Order: sequence, then structure tokens, then C-alpha cells
Amino acid sequence: MFDLAINDADLIVTSDNQNRVLSNSSIGVTYGAIVEISPSPLPAKEIFDAKGKLIAPGLINTHTHLAMTLFRGWAEGVDLQGFLERVWAAEGAIMNPETAELGTSLGALEALLGGTTTALDMYLFPDAAHKGAVQAGLRHISGPIFFDSAGLDGMEWSDRIAFARSWNEKIKEIGGPQVPLYLMPHSTYTCSPQHLQEIAVLANELGAAINIHASENLKENDDVTKRYGKTPTEILKESGILDVHTVYGHGVHLSDSDLDSLGNQGVAHCPGSNLKLASGIADVTKYRERGIQVGLGTDGCSSSNDLDMWSVMRLAGYLISQSRGPEKSDAATIFRMATVDGAAALGIEDIVGSIEIGKRADLIALDLGAPHLIPMHDVFAQLVYSAGRSDVTDVWVDGRTVVRDQESTSIDFPQLKQRVLTRTTALKGK
Amino acid sequence: MFDLAINDADLIVTSDNQNRVLSNSSIGVTYGAIVEISPSPLPAKEIFDAKGKLIAPGLINTHTHLAMTLFRGWAEGVDLQGFLERVWAAEGAIMNPETAELGTSLGALEALLGGTTTALDMYLFPDAAHKGAVQAGLRHISGPIFFDSAGLDGMEWSDRIAFARSWNEKIKEIGGPQVPLYLMPHSTYTCSPQHLQEIAVLANELGAAINIHASENLKENDDVTKRYGKTPTEILKESGILDVHTVYGHGVHLSDSDLDSLGNQGVAHCPGSNLKLASGIADVTKYRERGIQVGLGTDGCSSSNDLDMWSVMRLAGYLISQSRGPEKSDAATIFRMATVDGAAALGIEDIVGSIEIGKRADLIALDLGAPHLIPMHDVFAQLVYSAGRSDVTDVWVDGRTVVRDQESTSIDFPQLKQRVLTRTTALKGK
Repeated sequence: MFDLAINDADLIVTSDNQNRVLSNSSIGVTYGAIVEISPSPLPAKEIFDAKGKLIAPGLINTHTHLAMTLFRGWAEGVDLQGFLERVWAAEGAIMNPETAELGTSLGALEALLGGTTTALDMYLFPDAAHKGAVQAGLRHISGPIFFDSAGLDGMEWSDRIAFARSWNEKIKEIGGPQVPLYLMPHSTYTCSPQHLQEIAVLANELGAAINIHASENLKENDDVTKRYGKTPTEILKESGILDVHTVYGHGVHLSDSDLDSLGNQGVAHCPGSNLKLASGIADVTKYRERGIQVGLGTDGCSSSNDLDMWSVMRLAGYLISQSRGPEKSDAATIFRMATVDGAAALGIEDIVGSIEIGKRADLIALDLGAPHLIPMHDVFAQLVYSAGRSDVTDVWVDGRTVVRDQESTSIDFPQLKQRVLTRTTALKGK
Repeated sequence: MFDLAINDADLIVTSDNQNRVLSNSSIGVTYGAIVEISPSPLPAKEIFDAKGKLIAPGLINTHTHLAMTLFRGWAEGVDLQGFLERVWAAEGAIMNPETAELGTSLGALEALLGGTTTALDMYLFPDAAHKGAVQAGLRHISGPIFFDSAGLDGMEWSDRIAFARSWNEKIKEIGGPQVPLYLMPHSTYTCSPQHLQEIAVLANELGAAINIHASENLKENDDVTKRYGKTPTEILKESGILDVHTVYGHGVHLSDSDLDSLGNQGVAHCPGSNLKLASGIADVTKYRERGIQVGLGTDGCSSSNDLDMWSVMRLAGYLISQSRGPEKSDAATIFRMATVDGAAALGIEDIVGSIEIGKRADLIALDLGAPHLIPMHDVFAQLVYSAGRSDVTDVWVDGRTVVRDQESTSIDFPQLKQRVLTRTTALKGK
């Protein structure tokens, strides 16, 4: 008797090593882990009838800023630097621990409803944000953020270091699905090489990984190179950051020498945000060929406007097809980027990213019945180029039902919405 | 007393000449036409409560092949020429008037559910296809298709000409929303210059417009130039085709001289299909600056996999932003491309494309309540970069409710689906 059985799924897309797709199969879950995959329906305390459904690993958003959901559509018609200017002003007007928690709850809810079960999320007030996301049921990888200057959170450098030392305790207190420790220096243009060195030492000491923006656009590369005579990656290498597990947000403009330095680290490819801010197009086929773990990300809602990983998958496929030829953009590869490769980019491929015995049960169900999903000649093409967030009906994180029949099991959405509208009123006319 | 009143809409996005967005307004419809736009609710035989909703003009898909919905995901990992080879074989296996009608019904249903109310649709068996689309309630612009060789439909050239002469009678017999006459020569690589001349003369005689594929990729341009010593546009100009209203499907690779010849004709920009088949990226900002009417299109489901105009809008905005800078890709412009500019491209801006008194009531309602649509700082950014097909709840064509609460009012979808699955079985294993 399992805790949960997902029975008789039309299709199970596993994202396992052989990229198997199983027909008419069932999944048994106990203590939040996948413990059986079977051609027959399984007995369980809770049974989900998956007839007419496709079951897949939850999607992994490898780069976002969930609290910025409050700034959706707030910075239109600007490039990265114009964007930062506009958004930093808006943050000054309304952001505090309460609004960070609120915005992150909204973002986590949107992410989950669209089939994203894990997000690597960089933002101010990470403990408040983490509370908001955990409440919605997301596997939420948050972490202390670092800038040289005291930011909106009013923290001096020494406060940030002390906060980082207490982070492990904080996430234990807050609870929620298992996540790795991350430290999140914002970028090489906001953290000095000396500070980055200090973070690398701390990461080693704490056993933490690193999440940082790097080489998002050419102006960033130019600015950093002018200031330090080095590319962002050269600075990160010399500071020791690249000696620990690191995930680059964006990494659009990386030279061959940068790629050598990166080795098999993670890059979060955010093509929607990159095109919208005119940052460029990352040559992720090359990155993959050189051993880099490439995941997909939405970025925050102030640059990419929503948290739709389906739209990101489709776009990633299109861009590879145009630049490298259609034979390089096979949909199966793209779907792996959104699942198991994203998990590898984050260093959590042992616990999530595929449907395999022993992994945590982070799963999504898609209804295959919509007109835009028939007929089905190619399951991966269907997932990447035809399916969308609205096809996701049910979502489990750690074996717990967090979305049932397209509704959150834990968030009172009308109440959350009212709070969001109230808290963002202060932005009107700014 | 109106036939239909759409009352108390939170927002009405008009796409009128001033691109006005009205708050808390109502629309009165009589005999299928918009006859009043009012700040107060209106009396009517049928009342739609639009509180919490945004009302917009129905989207206009300026280039598609609806029957090819049956080949969704059938030609993956290939360029345009590989695609044509693969799809033509599949068409040979299953396409006939019955399957054309069936596939077009499925496509029309998908289009309508996603908020598309008009489509310019090129396919074999256009009368059968038209029946299928009209049954679903779409404003469906079909027309006789022309190739030099007898195609799958077994028609010789003289049969095609005779069929074209009877087309006006055929669409009257079939009924459905008002549409203009179109003749649809497939391309300059499948129709000789002599035949194109003949079509131009016929179009003039019948008062018909022209829909043709042109300059979709560089290989097409090369092939045509090798054969005739002229670009596709030069051939079309010399044949007299460009003296009548013409819509180019794709038009990705047009020289300045081609653009001069095109004048203010229509181009259907299909960025999803173009990227997926690695055809290139049309510089539509330049086209617009030179007076060309640029609409948006999905192309058929064998190349772009679905009929989602929201995804096309988002992509069109992204590509303009990356190539021309974010300030050139303002969402308001993109939304006009999907509505009133698309209507202008098709030469039907007098009857549809905007919410103005006297126009046909082709309207869509979007629920503004989804988590991915709050908060709303910029209505056009929200429509282009956050909204999607699943936000469309109700659709009217000619004032008739064709989608109510996300379901077709005329198509028995389970039955249609069963027929689609049965008819596409013959493709398995090919």
C-alpha cells in the first residue's frame, strides 16, 4: 500500500537516462519518493486516476526573481540597464519583507499552476520570500543575496555574511521541500572581486552552491572589463567562485576561454528575457557540446512578464532551430533541458528532474484532451511546441498534491490577489 | 433593445485609430454589427456580463493551412524543403475532401477557442475545408488553390480555372460570415509565370484578392532566381499579380527593390514557423516603415504545431526587441498587428479588426483573473507578453456566440476527436 498512486497514465515521460516514454503505466509514491513504476495500477491511500493524462517530471525554472511578479509589465521598452534603473526605483517604493513574501507567493502559485515544481530564485529578503513560496508548495531554492552596497534591505556587508551563516537554520525553521544551500552574489558589477573571494570561502565552508548573474549582455561585459580588465567569468574564476558549484543566470556572452573556465557548471538559459531586453541569444548548443549543464529559466516577471516555462521551451527550440538547423533542436532535448538537465544545472539531479525510483515525487499531469493536442504524432514535439501551462491539471511536490484540477490546494487566491492589488497601488502614476 | 449587449467590461481594447482602451464600458450589437459603445450597460435580448473581463477584437490569423492540423508534429527536425517532402507524402496517404473538412474543423475549433476569429487559409479542397471551418463558426477566408501540376485533388489547370469561376457561388451556398474572394496560387516555385499571369487576369475579372507564399526562405529565392533569373516578387510584379490586393505568406527575404514593388500590400509574418524551419527572421519593422501592411500568422500545424496567435504575438515582440531595440517592440504595436493591421493586410479592415461602430462584432473576452495576469501595470504588455489562449473565455463572430465559457457552441468535440484519431491512424509507422 503506497501513500499515493498515479494510476493508468496514458503516457509517462520519464526524462530518465534512456529518455523512456511509458504507455499505460502507474507510479507509486511513499514518503514523498517515487518507489515504484509499474505497468499495472497500484494500491494506495490516495489514488489519482491518470487516464487521458500525460505524467512528466515537474519543470525546473533555473533562474527567476519570483517577488518581482509584483512588477509584471512595469518596465517595458527598455534594455537591461534601463530595466534595472526602472525596477530599482519601483522596488524602493514598495518592497519590504511583507511584499517580498506576497510577491513570491503569487509567483510560486503561478509557477506551480503552470507545472513548475522547482525554482532557483534570487531576491532580497530571501527568508520572507522563502516563506511565501513554501506556503504555495514550491520546491524553492532561495538564498542570501549579496551586493557591495547596503541595499533596500539596509544590510551592510558584515550583516550579509552573518545572515548567510544563519541561512541553513532559517530554511530548516521555515520548512518545505528539501533544497540545497545557495549563496547568491548578484553579479560581478555589483560585488567586488574581494567580496566575491569572501563568498567563495564562505560557500566552501558551508557546503553551499552559488547563483550569480553573469554576462547577460554585451554592455555588462564591457563595463566589467573596463573596470577590472577581466570578463565576469575571469573574475569569478580568480575569486574561487568557480571552484564551487555555480549557476550562471543568463550567461549569454561567454567566450571560448570563459567556457573552458566554466567546465561543467550550470547555465540558466532565459531566452524570453534575453530577447525582450535585447541582451542577445546564448549559443546553448555549443555550451552543451562543451559539457555545460544548460537549464531553462524565465527570469523575473518585470523582464519576461510571466513564469511560463512552456513558452520558454518553445522559444529555446525555435532559436536553436534557426541558428543551428532544425535537426539540432529536437524537442526531446529541449524537454530534458526543462527537467533533468535543469536539475543537473542546479546540482539536484539526485533528487529531482526525472521519474525514476528513489527520486522525490515532483510530478505534473497534463490533460491530453485539448484540441491543440490532437492528433499526437510525436510526444516531445507536442510537449515543446503545442502544449502550454493551461494543459497542466495536477501537480505534486514531494508527493504532496499542491495543485488539484488547476487550483492551488493551499493558497486562498482571491485573498492573495486582493493583497497584491492593494500593495501595488503605490506604484500607480510613478 | 440590442440583439446582444456585452456589459460592464473592465476594459475594452478597441484597436481603433487612437488605439483607445475604455474602462467599464459596454458594447451593443445588432444584426451582427457593433452599433453602440457606451459607458453604461445596454438593454438587449442576450446579455453577456463582462465584469472582470477584457474585451478585444478577435485575432486575425493571416496565414495558415488549417486542414494540416492533422499533421501536427509530423515533420520535426527538417527545414522548409524537407518539410514539404515529408508532408506531401502524408497528404497523399490520407487527404481527401472528407479529411480536409475534418482537419479544418479541428483547426477552426482550436483557433476560435484561442481567440482567433478570422483566418486566411490556403489548402486543397477549399470548399470542403470551408464547410468545416464555417461549421465551427470561424470567419474563414478560403479560396481555390493553384499549382501547375495536377495535385492530390487530381485537378488539371483548366479544372482549377473553372472551379475558381464558380467559387463565389460555392461560398454563398456554404454560408458563414462574410468573406472576400481570394485566389490562392501556391507559390512562384509551383506556378509558372504564364499561369500566374492567367490568375492575375482572372482575379481582376472576379474582383478577387491573391494569397501566395513568397520568399519564405533563401533556398526558395535561390531556386526561383536560378530558374527564372528573377526574384519571386519580380515574377509576381511582371505577371500582374501585384496589381491586385495580395497577401504574402511569410515574405521573410525581401530586397529593397522587392519592397518597392510590394507597395502597401500585405505580408503575413509567421515568426514561429520561420524560426522552427530555420527560414530566417523577417525585418517587419522595416516593412511597416515602408508602408507594407504586416499581419501575424501561425502557418500550418505541421510546421508551427499549433494555432496559438498569443504565442506568435509574444515571439514577434521578442524578435523586434532583439533586432531593433526594445523601444521598437512596444506591445501596443504588436497587438495591432494581430488585429486591425492583420485586417488591413487582408483588405478587410472595413469590416473587422477593431471595436468600432459599424464593424462586424468579431469579439473575444479574456478573464483577467488568472494569477499570471495580476497585477496589471500595462494592458498591452499584459496582452502580448503574459496572456495566452487559456485566458480567452468567450468568442463572438458576426455577433454570434461561437465559444461560451471555453467551449464551442457548435462542434461536438468528443465526436470530432474520435474521427480525427481514426482518420490519422493510417499515418502510423510511415
